[in-house]
Amino acid sequence: MKARALNSTLTADGTIRLTLADVELGDPGPDEIIVRVDAAPVNPTDLYLMLAMADLSKASVDGGALVAPVPKGVVAVFPGRIDKPLPIGTEGAGTVVAAGANAQAMLGKVVAGAGGGMFATHRKLPAMAMRELPAGRTAEDGASSFVNPMTALSFVETMRAEKHAAIVHTAAASNLGQMLVKICAADGVPLVNIVRRPAHVEQLRALGSRHVVDSSAASYAADLQDAIAATGATLAFDAIGGGPQVSQILDAMERAAVRSMTAFSHYGSATHKQVYIYGSLDRGPTPLVRTFGMTWSVGGYLVSNALRKLGGEAYARMNKRVMSELTTTFASNYKASIALDKLLDLETLRACAATATGEKYLITAAR
Amino acid sequence: MKARALNSTLTADGTIRLTLADVELGDPGPDEIIVRVDAAPVNPTDLYLMLAMADLSKASVDGGALVAPVPKGVVAVFPGRIDKPLPIGTEGAGTVVAAGANAQAMLGKVVAGAGGGMFATHRKLPAMAMRELPAGRTAEDGASSFVNPMTALSFVETMRAEKHAAIVHTAAASNLGQMLVKICAADGVPLVNIVRRPAHVEQLRALGSRHVVDSSAASYAADLQDAIAATGATLAFDAIGGGPQVSQILDAMERAAVRSMTAFSHYGSATHKQVYIYGSLDRGPTPLVRTFGMTWSVGGYLVSNALRKLGGEAYARMNKRVMSELTTTFASNYKASIALDKLLDLETLRACAATATGEKYLITAAR
Repeated sequence: MKARALNSTLTADGTIRLTLADVELGDPGPDEIIVRVDAAPVNPTDLYLMLAMADLSKASVDGGALVAPVPKGVVAVFPGRIDKPLPIGTEGAGTVVAAGANAQAMLGKVVAGAGGGMFATHRKLPAMAMRELPAGRTAEDGASSFVNPMTALSFVETMRAEKHAAIVHTAAASNLGQMLVKICAADGVPLVNIVRRPAHVEQLRALGSRHVVDSSAASYAADLQDAIAATGATLAFDAIGGGPQVSQILDAMERAAVRSMTAFSHYGSATHKQVYIYGSLDRGPTPLVRTFGMTWSVGGYLVSNALRKLGGEAYARMNKRVMSELTTTFASNYKASIALDKLLDLETLRACAATATGEKYLITAAR
Repeated sequence: MKARALNSTLTADGTIRLTLADVELGDPGPDEIIVRVDAAPVNPTDLYLMLAMADLSKASVDGGALVAPVPKGVVAVFPGRIDKPLPIGTEGAGTVVAAGANAQAMLGKVVAGAGGGMFATHRKLPAMAMRELPAGRTAEDGASSFVNPMTALSFVETMRAEKHAAIVHTAAASNLGQMLVKICAADGVPLVNIVRRPAHVEQLRALGSRHVVDSSAASYAADLQDAIAATGATLAFDAIGGGPQVSQILDAMERAAVRSMTAFSHYGSATHKQVYIYGSLDRGPTPLVRTFGMTWSVGGYLVSNALRKLGGEAYARMNKRVMSELTTTFASNYKASIALDKLLDLETLRACAATATGEKYLITAAR
C-alpha cells in the first residue's frame, strides 16, 4: 500500500525542507495496523519539529519542496536530525484499512492516538499505539484526544502526586486550558488561569472559571498574588517558556506564602514552589529573577515523562476519562480544516505557524 | 549574664543599620547552654542577611551604628524583617560557660554548631544545637564545621539519593569546593570543577582534581562538555546563581547526552538534568536559554531542606564524618581573623563583603 507523508529535513547548511513523499507501507505485521488518517491537528509541538524555528518570511518553493532558512545555531542544537527526512504529526485519528493477524478486530474501526508521522494519507503503526473510539465518535472527534487531554489530566494527577492543593496555568485560554478549566471544575481543584488578553478573561469566566488573571493588565502582579493567596496554589504549568512569567509566578507564590509567615527567614518561605514549563510559545530565554527564596524548582515537563512517573494505573484512569468525555470536556476547537498538501502552501503554513491562542488547524481530507 | 551581639536592621525607609547591642542573656534553662563564642566565620549567607545588598560605597557612621542604603525593591522583598533588629552569624564555636541542669556534662567543653546569632560575645542556645568537638580540637578548628562541611557532604548524599553518577560544581575553588574535591576523591565520585580564574585551575589540580574547567577560557564550552561527557555528570550544584552558568551547564549536559543518542527527538535527550542553585555570589537574574530539551530541572538548594529530605540516618553519618575529619577534609582557610567590633569598621566590612574566592574572614576574640 502506498501513502503520501509530510517530511521535514534540516539540512547541514541551515535550511528546512518540507516535502510530501510517496511511501511504500508494505503489509502490516501480525501486531500492526494501517490507518487511513482522516483528521490530525497541527499542534505547537508539530510546528516546532516541522519548522525548527525557520524564518517563513524568507521561505521559497524549490521544485515540490518548501524551503526556509533556520536561525543561526539551530543546526548545532539538533545534530541528530541533520539531513534526515523526519515524519511529522504527533497525533491523529482515522479508519483501520488493514490489520495483521492479531489485530483483525480493529479492521474498519475508527481509532485515534499519538503514533507520530500522522501528517500522512496512511500510516502503519503498532495496534497498541492506537485506541478505538467509542461508538458514534468520528475521527474529527478523536483527532486531538491524546496530547491536550492527557496533558491536562496529567497536571491534576501530578498536583495530587506532588502534594499541591491548587494549580496556576498560563496561556489558559488555549484548547488545553479550556479542558483544564472543565477538569478542575469537575474535580473541585482550585485553578488560577493566566491569560494574555482581556477577551480571554471573559471567555474563561463564561466557562465558569473563578480565578482569571490578565497579564496585560496594570494590576497583574497584585491580581496574581491575590489569586494565588486565595487558592493556595504552589504549582504552575507554563505553556509559554520564554519571558518573565515563570519568575513572576514564583514571586507571587512567595509573596503569598510570606503573608502567613510569623518569623523572618532570609532564605524565604519554607513553602515549596514548583513551575513546570511544558510549552514554548516563546522560545526566548526564561530569566529567573530570584526574589522567591530558596525553596523552589523550575523544570521541563513532558507528558510522556509525567505518564511514566504517574504509572500505569493513573494512565488507564486518564485514558478512560478521555474516551468517555471526548465531545464534552475534551472537545477541541479549530480555526479551520485544511488538506494535507496545503502545508506546502506558504500562506496556509504561515497561518498554521502563528500559534495564536484558539487558532489551531486540523488536517482533514488527507487522502 | 551580659553579651554584646551584632544586629542588622532593615528600616522602612531603605537603609541597613548595623549595631552592637548589649543583650541580657539570663540564666540558661534546663536544656540550654551559654557559649562564649571564640570563633565564627563570615559566610556569604551572613553577609546577605547582614547587608541586604546594601551599597557600602554610600555607608556612613551614625552614632555607634553603621548605616548604608539598600537598592530599591529590597524593602518590598523582605517585609518580615522591616525595623526588626536581626541577630547575625549562622555558625561558630566556643566554650560552654554556663549550662542548665540537663546539660551539665557540656560545661567547659568546646562546642560548635549553627545556632544562629553567633556574631556575639556570648550566646544562649538549646544544648541540642551545638556539638562537642573531639578532644584536642579548638574553636577555630570547629568554627566552620556546619555550613560548608554539611553542604558539601549533602551534595554527595543527594547525588546518590537522586540516582546521579557524578557532580558538577561551580565556584569550585571555594572552601566548600575544596572540601568537595576531597570528599569526592575519597568516595570515588567523579567531579567536574568549574572555576573562574586560571590560578584556581592549578590550585584544584594540586589537590588532585582530575576535571577542572576554567570559565574564563575561550575553550570553556567545549571543555565543559568534554568533562561532563567523561564523567557522566547530570547533577550540578551552583554557588553563583545569577548569570549564564546554570544554562551553560544544562546545555553541556544535553550536548553530552545527545552524543550517545541513536534516534532524534525534538524534545531532547531522555536524560534527566538537574542543577541546584545553593548560593548567590551573583544576585542577578538566571537566564535559562532552553536549548537542552524538556527533561531538566533547576531548583533552589538549602542545606536544611536537603538534610530533612535525606533523613536522620544520613545526618548522623555526615556529622560523624565531619567530626573525625575536622582538620583534614573539612579544614577551612581564612584570609584574616578580626574582632567582632571590626564589623562596624567600614574598611573591614567592605573587605569581608567582597566574597572573593578564598577570602573568608573569621571573627575571633569576640569577647
